[in-house]
Amino acid sequence: MKQLNLNLHGGYTITVGRDLLRYADKYFNLKRRVFVITDSGVPAEYARTVASLARCSTVYTVSEGEGSKSLETLSEVLRAMLEFGMTRTDCVVAVGGGVVGDLSGFAAASYMRGIDFYNVPTTLLSQVDSSIGGKTAVNLGNVKNVVGAFHQPKGVLIDTDTLKTLSKRHYSAGMCEAIKMSLTSDDELFATFESKDITEDNLEDVIVRALMIKKAVVEEDERETGLRKILNLGHTLGHGIEAAEELGGLYHGECVALGMLPVVSDEVRARLIPVLHKFDLPTSYSGDLDYALKFIEHDKKSEGSDISVILVERVGEYVIKRMPIGEFKELVKERF
Amino acid sequence: MKQLNLNLHGGYTITVGRDLLRYADKYFNLKRRVFVITDSGVPAEYARTVASLARCSTVYTVSEGEGSKSLETLSEVLRAMLEFGMTRTDCVVAVGGGVVGDLSGFAAASYMRGIDFYNVPTTLLSQVDSSIGGKTAVNLGNVKNVVGAFHQPKGVLIDTDTLKTLSKRHYSAGMCEAIKMSLTSDDELFATFESKDITEDNLEDVIVRALMIKKAVVEEDERETGLRKILNLGHTLGHGIEAAEELGGLYHGECVALGMLPVVSDEVRARLIPVLHKFDLPTSYSGDLDYALKFIEHDKKSEGSDISVILVERVGEYVIKRMPIGEFKELVKERF
Repeated sequence: MKQLNLNLHGGYTITVGRDLLRYADKYFNLKRRVFVITDSGVPAEYARTVASLARCSTVYTVSEGEGSKSLETLSEVLRAMLEFGMTRTDCVVAVGGGVVGDLSGFAAASYMRGIDFYNVPTTLLSQVDSSIGGKTAVNLGNVKNVVGAFHQPKGVLIDTDTLKTLSKRHYSAGMCEAIKMSLTSDDELFATFESKDITEDNLEDVIVRALMIKKAVVEEDERETGLRKILNLGHTLGHGIEAAEELGGLYHGECVALGMLPVVSDEVRARLIPVLHKFDLPTSYSGDLDYALKFIEHDKKSEGSDISVILVERVGEYVIKRMPIGEFKELVKERF
Repeated sequence: MKQLNLNLHGGYTITVGRDLLRYADKYFNLKRRVFVITDSGVPAEYARTVASLARCSTVYTVSEGEGSKSLETLSEVLRAMLEFGMTRTDCVVAVGGGVVGDLSGFAAASYMRGIDFYNVPTTLLSQVDSSIGGKTAVNLGNVKNVVGAFHQPKGVLIDTDTLKTLSKRHYSAGMCEAIKMSLTSDDELFATFESKDITEDNLEDVIVRALMIKKAVVEEDERETGLRKILNLGHTLGHGIEAAEELGGLYHGECVALGMLPVVSDEVRARLIPVLHKFDLPTSYSGDLDYALKFIEHDKKSEGSDISVILVERVGEYVIKRMPIGEFKELVKERF
């Protein structure tokens, strides 16, 4: 078991290890009203286990999938919180993947203008990606994350045993975010992906290492004004593809895998493709690229007509380049 | 013309004076996409005047009344902002009363996790009450302000000429908030209400004086953990009555007038009632008091089963007392 301390607004601890769920009350203050949010795709016993440790709790289950990251579901969740009699001193616990975490975090951020939030990410993607940063959000139609808040959790619990019930495809999609982080910031971790199999024995280390990268970046740049943009490597095109697929066809991590290909050098691409293959991640897109590119204008990373693009020339290094959306589209079409 | 500088998160300036609307671009940075939100009860030329000063703008008009402070209206506003192509560097301007300000502020707080917000309050209530503090919110059903964010404006413009088009009843309801602030914090201002008529000549002074009280309180206590509670004088019962009236029968300021009566001493009450009469504010409630008291459990000021009640023994002084909701209900029934 390892712990990372985040020095953000208030400060909180991420605990990573095996068999942690049933000790959640050691890490979270559950001696109050606890509103546990999960989704129908997460084994129900995970949320029940956490809820059973609270003084007074309820489990609210939303439908699995990106469709629950909506203002409509948010409204239903907030009404249920009100009906459960939640006050300012009570808390929300998310048990599930990124959809549950983002939705629950925004519900906690906006209920009574902000109550305590704990996160128990149960997918690899949410463990390495959304457990740090305090970004909470819902979508508007097919525009992702356009409504939300910055709201840091009070604590995060990563129980790697929950990954045993994760499908192989979801697992691979999650690994893609760790690969992405290694590309800009940790050549040793990338070399591990190239040379070793990721097993139960080294998975905790890979997660912690990816979290260390994100921690360093986010602590330096809590409000995403500069450095934090490197976490968006592959996400500009990735979100476009995700939107074009109407939030269903490809997983987020798979879209990011595709999104990285045109923004890395030939040398990096030659090393990246075998790693993506190793984790059964896609390296070509059969959909309509032009259609996907149309969604980029709405991407929240665009400021005015220019966007920031993260380019990787060598593994472990990056360049942030401002360019007009048109230039980015050309780049994608040339290099994809 | 007077200016107050707030030392809150980022810092901003409130400008108070006559004939200011058509110079809004002197005080706000309107050289970008500007999404102006107003309501159907506000003279349309106010919003148009501000919009005409922007590089690129649109005016979005919601229905007049508390009903627009809903998640449904928020969702419509956010969709319109997205359609207007708003990015992170653009801004929202609210032109109207508290409903428009609270809704617009929350829209700005949550759009792309927070963009710039300017406020042009055009009612006396919103000028003295909601132009300071950064509290933004919408209601859930008839529970007020239960969903929102703390989001400070980048600037506030109070053009007292806009009060000429305000109904006498709205004007009185607004004055009630200034009376409330004088009761806890400014015996000289209260004496002015007792001894003088408020005319065009001293109105700007009254507004500035009320703002000075709120500024002092809010700067000390941005997150409403302690001192700021004094601004809630009369609001616990007031919100209960407002909820019981289904957000329509009585104005907010009128409910606060009623809400103050049971929480002041006999001596203060004897001075307060003539002042309320002077401004045609109610001093008795013909509705069902028990029904109104039922809504207090849902009031966001309640933490667990105890609530903080502000008591005024002498004009210009206050006591904050924690008491069970039951005790507060008894107090109200005895003293109302």
